[in-house]
Amino acid sequence: MGLKLYGIPVSTNTTRALVCLHEKGVDFELVPPFGLIPVLEDGDDFTIFESRAITSYVAEKFKETGPDLIRHQSPKEAALVKVWIEVESQNLQPAISPIVYQSLVAPLLGNTPDQAAIDTNLEKLGKVLDVYDSKLSSTKYLAGDFFSLADLHNFPYIFYFMKTPWASLVNDRPHVKAWWEDISSRPAFKKVAEGMTFGDKK
Amino acid sequence: MGLKLYGIPVSTNTTRALVCLHEKGVDFELVPPFGLIPVLEDGDDFTIFESRAITSYVAEKFKETGPDLIRHQSPKEAALVKVWIEVESQNLQPAISPIVYQSLVAPLLGNTPDQAAIDTNLEKLGKVLDVYDSKLSSTKYLAGDFFSLADLHNFPYIFYFMKTPWASLVNDRPHVKAWWEDISSRPAFKKVAEGMTFGDKK
Repeated sequence: MGLKLYGIPVSTNTTRALVCLHEKGVDFELVPPFGLIPVLEDGDDFTIFESRAITSYVAEKFKETGPDLIRHQSPKEAALVKVWIEVESQNLQPAISPIVYQSLVAPLLGNTPDQAAIDTNLEKLGKVLDVYDSKLSSTKYLAGDFFSLADLHNFPYIFYFMKTPWASLVNDRPHVKAWWEDISSRPAFKKVAEGMTFGDKK
Repeated sequence: MGLKLYGIPVSTNTTRALVCLHEKGVDFELVPPFGLIPVLEDGDDFTIFESRAITSYVAEKFKETGPDLIRHQSPKEAALVKVWIEVESQNLQPAISPIVYQSLVAPLLGNTPDQAAIDTNLEKLGKVLDVYDSKLSSTKYLAGDFFSLADLHNFPYIFYFMKTPWASLVNDRPHVKAWWEDISSRPAFKKVAEGMTFGDKK
């Protein structure tokens, strides 16, 4: 319940606040600002946080442009998109994110990866990917035979996961592998992947 | 008044939103999140933005701890602190920040520093520092013979400015130089300076 300062130690604005806290000698925690981003501003009067809320807003606002990521003309398809959005958010992400963190982030911070945490989560992730593989054996994409937000939301973590030593969890499941090769070759994904240099070997 | 996404290209949450925007092919601007930070959270129900609002909040909340940065027991001194806070914010920062940007940030981005912008702002900064030097010839600190937020707020930009080729603008003004040596040797400043590695030569 104490003071938390979200900031970056090299930022002039952050350091202005940091110096004041140190002058006062009060306890506080400096938290990296990743938790605050992304933020989408649409014009002067509309701002939203949370990546999945942003994708939904964009998909809804531009539903007539590009692929229909929310299947707005079919209530049933739209409901399936929402189901698989939840599967990613509630099942895939909680398993895959600690593996990515321990494999790619911990070493950069000078920490030894927690292999027990990796093993536990690899087991969980395997079960989630079994469910994906089964679904993808009957439809081309997660929510049906159409690309949607349900697929798109998987991109960031699977992209980084494929840089870890455990990529076989994806490659050994033929339908997951084919689906990943399909969606990761989309131009939008390739464009974003260019900036995702985290975890690259020098 | 288009779409602006505040984020970092390597962040999983940012990339989730980025992919969606690229899928839709809509125009947007990716803005580094530095503008959003720092943010101070105090407990679960209080959050403030803007570095100078944060320092004022901390200085007020902890007015009995450490140096009294707002002179809360003297309305006249408190008013002078506010005056010199405004001088830094409205006069020093607008002149010094483009010099720091052009000298330290532009080269990192592969851009040639805009020397005309540097020259124009060096002239403006010189005039601001003349005002500082005159004031500091009669009092030890900006708002009087006491260290306050008015001094503290100058730290981040002058710190980086001293790494540019134009540090003589400070060093050639004896009272500004003595004041800078005084405040930059405060333990709180030295602690924060350790993280301010931006612009350091490799």
